Amino acid sequence: VFFFKCDNMLQTSDNKIHVTWVHCILLSPVQVANNMMDMDQDPRKRLCFADGRRKVDYVLVYHYRKRSSVRGSPSQHRLSIISNGSYPLGVEEKDQEGRKDEPAEVVVDVGPPDPADGEKIMIREEFEGNLKDAGLEIEHDKENKAHGHAFIRLHAPWQVLSREAEFLKIKVPTKKVRHKKGLAATMNEVWRKLNQPFQPKVPHQEQEHSRTKFLSHYATHTPSVFCVTFRKYFGEKIGLYFAWLGVYTQLLIPASVVGIIVFFYGWATVETNIPSQEMCDEDQNFTMCPLCDRACDYWHLSTACGTARASHLFDNPATVFFAIFMSLWAAMFLEHWKRRQISLNYSWDLTGMEEEEVHSHTYIVTLCYSLLTSTGHEKLTWRDRLPGYLINISSILFMFGVTCSAVFSVIIYRITISALMAMSSDPEVKSNVRVTVTATAVIINLVVILILDEIYGMVAAWLTELEIPKTETNFEERLILKAFLLKFMNAYAPIFYVAFFKGRFAGRPGDYVYVFNDYRMEECAPGGCLIELCIQLSIIMLGKQLIQNNVFEIGIPKLKKLCRTLKDKERAPKEIVEQPGRRQQWHLDYDLEPFDGLTPEYMEMIIQFGFVSLFVASFPLAPLFALLNNVIEIRLDAKKFVTELRRPDAIRAKDIGIWYNILSGLGKFSVIINAFVISFTSDFIPRLVYQYMYSETGTMHGFINHTLSYFNVSNFKPGTVPSISSLGKDITFCRYKDYREPPWSTEPYQFSKQYWSVLAARLGFVILFQNLVITMSMLVAWVIPDVPKNISEKLKKEKTLLVDVFLNEEKEKLQLIQSLFSRDLTQEQQEELKVSDQTSLPLQQTQPGQLPPTSSPAPRTRPRAASFSQFTRQMSMSPRSDITQHTAV
Amino acid sequence: VFFFKCDNMLQTSDNKIHVTWVHCILLSPVQVANNMMDMDQDPRKRLCFADGRRKVDYVLVYHYRKRSSVRGSPSQHRLSIISNGSYPLGVEEKDQEGRKDEPAEVVVDVGPPDPADGEKIMIREEFEGNLKDAGLEIEHDKENKAHGHAFIRLHAPWQVLSREAEFLKIKVPTKKVRHKKGLAATMNEVWRKLNQPFQPKVPHQEQEHSRTKFLSHYATHTPSVFCVTFRKYFGEKIGLYFAWLGVYTQLLIPASVVGIIVFFYGWATVETNIPSQEMCDEDQNFTMCPLCDRACDYWHLSTACGTARASHLFDNPATVFFAIFMSLWAAMFLEHWKRRQISLNYSWDLTGMEEEEVHSHTYIVTLCYSLLTSTGHEKLTWRDRLPGYLINISSILFMFGVTCSAVFSVIIYRITISALMAMSSDPEVKSNVRVTVTATAVIINLVVILILDEIYGMVAAWLTELEIPKTETNFEERLILKAFLLKFMNAYAPIFYVAFFKGRFAGRPGDYVYVFNDYRMEECAPGGCLIELCIQLSIIMLGKQLIQNNVFEIGIPKLKKLCRTLKDKERAPKEIVEQPGRRQQWHLDYDLEPFDGLTPEYMEMIIQFGFVSLFVASFPLAPLFALLNNVIEIRLDAKKFVTELRRPDAIRAKDIGIWYNILSGLGKFSVIINAFVISFTSDFIPRLVYQYMYSETGTMHGFINHTLSYFNVSNFKPGTVPSISSLGKDITFCRYKDYREPPWSTEPYQFSKQYWSVLAARLGFVILFQNLVITMSMLVAWVIPDVPKNISEKLKKEKTLLVDVFLNEEKEKLQLIQSLFSRDLTQEQQEELKVSDQTSLPLQQTQPGQLPPTSSPAPRTRPRAASFSQFTRQMSMSPRSDITQHTAV
Repeated sequence: VFFFKCDNMLQTSDNKIHVTWVHCILLSPVQVANNMMDMDQDPRKRLCFADGRRKVDYVLVYHYRKRSSVRGSPSQHRLSIISNGSYPLGVEEKDQEGRKDEPAEVVVDVGPPDPADGEKIMIREEFEGNLKDAGLEIEHDKENKAHGHAFIRLHAPWQVLSREAEFLKIKVPTKKVRHKKGLAATMNEVWRKLNQPFQPKVPHQEQEHSRTKFLSHYATHTPSVFCVTFRKYFGEKIGLYFAWLGVYTQLLIPASVVGIIVFFYGWATVETNIPSQEMCDEDQNFTMCPLCDRACDYWHLSTACGTARASHLFDNPATVFFAIFMSLWAAMFLEHWKRRQISLNYSWDLTGMEEEEVHSHTYIVTLCYSLLTSTGHEKLTWRDRLPGYLINISSILFMFGVTCSAVFSVIIYRITISALMAMSSDPEVKSNVRVTVTATAVIINLVVILILDEIYGMVAAWLTELEIPKTETNFEERLILKAFLLKFMNAYAPIFYVAFFKGRFAGRPGDYVYVFNDYRMEECAPGGCLIELCIQLSIIMLGKQLIQNNVFEIGIPKLKKLCRTLKDKERAPKEIVEQPGRRQQWHLDYDLEPFDGLTPEYMEMIIQFGFVSLFVASFPLAPLFALLNNVIEIRLDAKKFVTELRRPDAIRAKDIGIWYNILSGLGKFSVIINAFVISFTSDFIPRLVYQYMYSETGTMHGFINHTLSYFNVSNFKPGTVPSISSLGKDITFCRYKDYREPPWSTEPYQFSKQYWSVLAARLGFVILFQNLVITMSMLVAWVIPDVPKNISEKLKKEKTLLVDVFLNEEKEKLQLIQSLFSRDLTQEQQEELKVSDQTSLPLQQTQPGQLPPTSSPAPRTRPRAASFSQFTRQMSMSPRSDITQHTAV
Repeated sequence: VFFFKCDNMLQTSDNKIHVTWVHCILLSPVQVANNMMDMDQDPRKRLCFADGRRKVDYVLVYHYRKRSSVRGSPSQHRLSIISNGSYPLGVEEKDQEGRKDEPAEVVVDVGPPDPADGEKIMIREEFEGNLKDAGLEIEHDKENKAHGHAFIRLHAPWQVLSREAEFLKIKVPTKKVRHKKGLAATMNEVWRKLNQPFQPKVPHQEQEHSRTKFLSHYATHTPSVFCVTFRKYFGEKIGLYFAWLGVYTQLLIPASVVGIIVFFYGWATVETNIPSQEMCDEDQNFTMCPLCDRACDYWHLSTACGTARASHLFDNPATVFFAIFMSLWAAMFLEHWKRRQISLNYSWDLTGMEEEEVHSHTYIVTLCYSLLTSTGHEKLTWRDRLPGYLINISSILFMFGVTCSAVFSVIIYRITISALMAMSSDPEVKSNVRVTVTATAVIINLVVILILDEIYGMVAAWLTELEIPKTETNFEERLILKAFLLKFMNAYAPIFYVAFFKGRFAGRPGDYVYVFNDYRMEECAPGGCLIELCIQLSIIMLGKQLIQNNVFEIGIPKLKKLCRTLKDKERAPKEIVEQPGRRQQWHLDYDLEPFDGLTPEYMEMIIQFGFVSLFVASFPLAPLFALLNNVIEIRLDAKKFVTELRRPDAIRAKDIGIWYNILSGLGKFSVIINAFVISFTSDFIPRLVYQYMYSETGTMHGFINHTLSYFNVSNFKPGTVPSISSLGKDITFCRYKDYREPPWSTEPYQFSKQYWSVLAARLGFVILFQNLVITMSMLVAWVIPDVPKNISEKLKKEKTLLVDVFLNEEKEKLQLIQSLFSRDLTQEQQEELKVSDQTSLPLQQTQPGQLPPTSSPAPRTRPRAASFSQFTRQMSMSPRSDITQHTAV
């Protein structure tokens, strides 16, 4: 972990110029080492300055071109600003001097041949001067003077590192953790091995693991010894992602198991389930009203036996239990993650880290950017921001519209295709209408979702830039929120349609709802919409994950890398030919894809979490699919991070940030969604109402008859009666699925009392379910303490220890002072002389009862982190070496 | 604010003995000064040790008795352990040596005449030794050797205070806040004056105010100058209570205003309201079924005109708006309080304070107690605690039962009395049945509530003791939770009954529900239950507040004080007679009531918050009543704290603790309760359903007729027909308020379709209301940033300043070291000698690139609050005097 002071570099000059300077390619020695395995030179020498002692900590790269370049491009002597993809995008907008060359690079003219370029050299020199002022040591590239990439290598000396460690309040352990022994250790090992498939690269509970896991993986790749001192390879932020993924995947196991049990319960009870038996019973000859006008015939309900049986797999009482279980599971997952986060904070020594540090100090780019924006753009008023916000709102509304119209287009496709296929004379076509239409529509949906997903990602980034957020964290949060909103909507709109709208606006026989005056609105399958929801959900979930994982995450980066390599070759073919054996490690790293931030990884997982939690009532196997996906995902991600991407900057982070809020929001949202799915999409409530209010025997016998209303075929509107009918002759009444008054009642075809009672029961169930589950979730959250007991005990112990040490030190100090006073008085005076430029106050602490003067001579600052240790340490004049010592362990 | 180190005192000896020592009466000089205005001596001298220089910071009191005492009591030479009522109650249980004498004192034998008492003297001496070790200075009482109270006076020297300030990370401002000038200041002053009635004694936004307000109030009472250095009088915890009360009361103003508007809207529209017009219309001759068996006659609906009109005052569409408004108000109140809390934390310099400090370091008693329990009772296992938990659960269930049976008894009272009164022959009695019964029942309810409230407070304390919580904070939290649960239930059970149960189990004509085989269950008034709920609510709210405020809060303490004085006089009449002119300030303070903690104050306000938020839909004037109460309450509380109670220990606190959680829980609960009140208790939904589903004209005309079902009087069970009837002759049908099928339908007296549709609408409204309001509340919470902008900016500025100063210091330090190295090398070596007992490591920071050895020689602790300042300060050897200086400003 490295940390530069950027504010120094920026304070002395105006901001506009420095926009072009704050980004730099940050390569660290481990990454360098990682890529030089096949080099023939002594690797230690390769990672060091010319003196062979000071190691190369960072490399600043800029590339430029001779005037006699092949291309007469005006953009000569460019500074390539590559911050591994994590640079704030907003800069591109404001950077008037540069022009966009390719997405990952901001290219700025710094070429000296132009007269205006002299300024650039001055800026560079000033920048380097500032780096030196901050204590960094600089080595210039001497070989590649001609053209192409120029490398400035930086070395951060020990005192700079320790100073920055002080700023960041990095803590280090004082004792080695003892290894567990005996049975407990064996059990632990077994448990670890069981869990291993789900969390490779993820630090485990034990401190020892967390310290070495990343390291051990790369230690074999790292030939130089001093790389080992860098405790972590990717930094806490990426570590937290993998830890989170590990916890999530681990907790998916119980969810999957319960899901499978629920599924098998449905599978086992399908034979004994009275409603599906009744539907399949060919003796109970329910003649149903035709599914489309004219072309469709009356049909027997027993022909829909298959879907009824399939429906029962997902629509059975166990599903209700499962929905409750999954809501509590989500609450437990969040609480568990909170605890894990605190454990990790402790074992990663982040407990003392201040929240604000995360936002401004960890990150060279963040800091510079935030300083820049806070000084350069402080004058941005409400008026400046208004257009951005307006565009934002209107664009998001427009995207909503796009998503909705995409969904609606698919509906239209389904309606028209099914109508056309129904009119076909081929009986083969006719019998497969529903399957064909559903399958093709879902695939179209999937493709639309995948395409819009990419578009929305870009739109969200563009919109966030327009807002000109003040800090990098702010930028990231807004971007994530927007992207999440758009992508969530995109992925779930068709599912929401199937769950809550499909078939509800279709009307009734004799009074159907038509779109475009010709096509009847689609209805659900006779087994209920739940089975369709289930199909929709599984295809979108599986398809999205498979395609995004394999094609996008693996394929696209490889393609991009190829493109980059080809481009670079085209741009500077001579250079590479010139020095084939001298390619440095940073050249190799340069060929890798820059790190795009963790947002896509998290986004994918959060959308998946939505699949697992939101509609779990309709698809109990979702956790299983998610689990299988994640086992692969972790591996692919890890491989990608290690081999496909430039090494990301190590970023300190205490938590997963806004993702936690999104997760928690999804968890809350899932409760109401599941309540509605169970009560409105499934037949759970009608069955209950029938059994306890209307059934004469108290059993489910007669349920199907109860749910079907009568329709007098003479009430069909002219032209909608089936034109050719095998059953039509002797039929007076056909049946349809709804609770309406029969034709012979005083209010024919009005909603019946049953309808209202079932609706009341459904709504009552929603209230009951929602409040019950919310209360239980809050109870779960309340019962599970946020801070694990062992951590809080450790913290307490550390504190007690600290207090004891300080008290002892104070005693020793007093004794020391007394002995010093008595032994040597002149020496004391000399010391006072030395510090006279710092303060003019005498030592007052030793004069009891006397009060200090109320106004001190212009104290420069209030002691922010004034601690007793300062007091005693300074008094006893112990050297700081023991503390700086720890920082490096 | 004083802080003693207790751990030292306890570490060296066993715990059992020290139970008798950890409590001590803590009197501070300000309080002392406050009570000695009428003394004739020089007040400065009175507050000091015999030397006239060192001031008395604390007084330890124990009282003892000669063997020749009037009472032959075995408890001689007692140590009176009075910790202002805030000592952990659990100690009493474990204290086997002592015995309970009176609630506020734990009396322990320490009398020397017994041979066993020699040990006590030893203990006292050891205790005093420990105090001295901790740096405190002690003066013994020399005059009152004979008998009665013995005083040990303590003085905390400057270095002890500054050491503890370091531990607590107390921060102080470096600059004075500039006073605002011009228009802004005037406006500010006007605003402050407007607000003044609602927040006396409460620190205001401006720093200046917050620092001096408590002080200024007492500065006039304080004759000695050095008292001014004590920045706050009551400490942050009590300050936070008043600040919270101020914010709450202030925010009640808009709520009251809106409530009054809603009430007047109802009042203004009552004439144009069609349902109440129809009810009062004597032409629409609805003949209602009798309200009781035999004794009651049929009656005309128009006779209930009064209640119908009154009902409209509270049951009109504006109430729905008001319920939504109040839910958002509650969310806003919580958010606003969060911000205020952070502002106060900043202006009270608590921003750096660690959460844990609050729990363990602030408070002599807390600390000692937690140390005690953690060392003495660490062996408490699950088994030890089980009986306590079991008793807890069963007791709470039992209390639930008590509350419910109290409510049920009142119901029975109402049923029987109304039945008896209805049977009376006196027409005067008959006409006033409802008013008389309701009024007396509510008063009985109120009395029961007030009695149970006191009992439950004691029960909660007793139950919490049984649990043996580990820390004082833990104890307090559990006690509060239990007391809240019991008192909340107690106060709200009758209201819940009226709102949701009354009249719902009464049955229908011909099939009434009877209790004790004779008495019909009570029904609501014809205008709906809402008006009854409203009466219940207003009487309980007003009655509870008036009686608890005036009688309990003012009367009881005065009575107690009187008792104490009488008792003390009886106990030691001679002493007082002996030294009439020599009564010290601590004697006067001793006569005051000990401080009982803030729990009762908070509890009262939270229960009031419940009235304001939970059932606000039924009683829009609740905020107004709460506001009026609070304006008085703040004054009474302030007076009580200043004149009636011993000065409480100043306790540092960052927040209001568990009360915030309770408030937020109440806020959430209020949403669902209000949703149910609007949809089920009020007639809002039936009216809507009628207007949009059943009314032929689209207006409310005919609504009353629609809500009344028909009953064929021939279907009355034998013996229930009115015995004497003026209308009975020509009546076939009577009407009753319900949605049931008429006698001529196929299913007579079954719930009609209207019933189910209204039920569905009601439930739908609950879902809509709940989710809408929850979403809006979350939005409010999300939009209002937790940290006020000016505070976050100030914090940022401070941080930047700090960084700059440190960077400059580092530079100066490096220059200094260089100059020192060149000037004098031998002196450096001498300094190294001095620190050689602290560490054996050489200064390594100055050797760039070289890595320190991986294992340091047994470092004693990890540097917890390691900051850059330590580093630079130690390097530059600046004395600490400037920092300790700040601490005292």
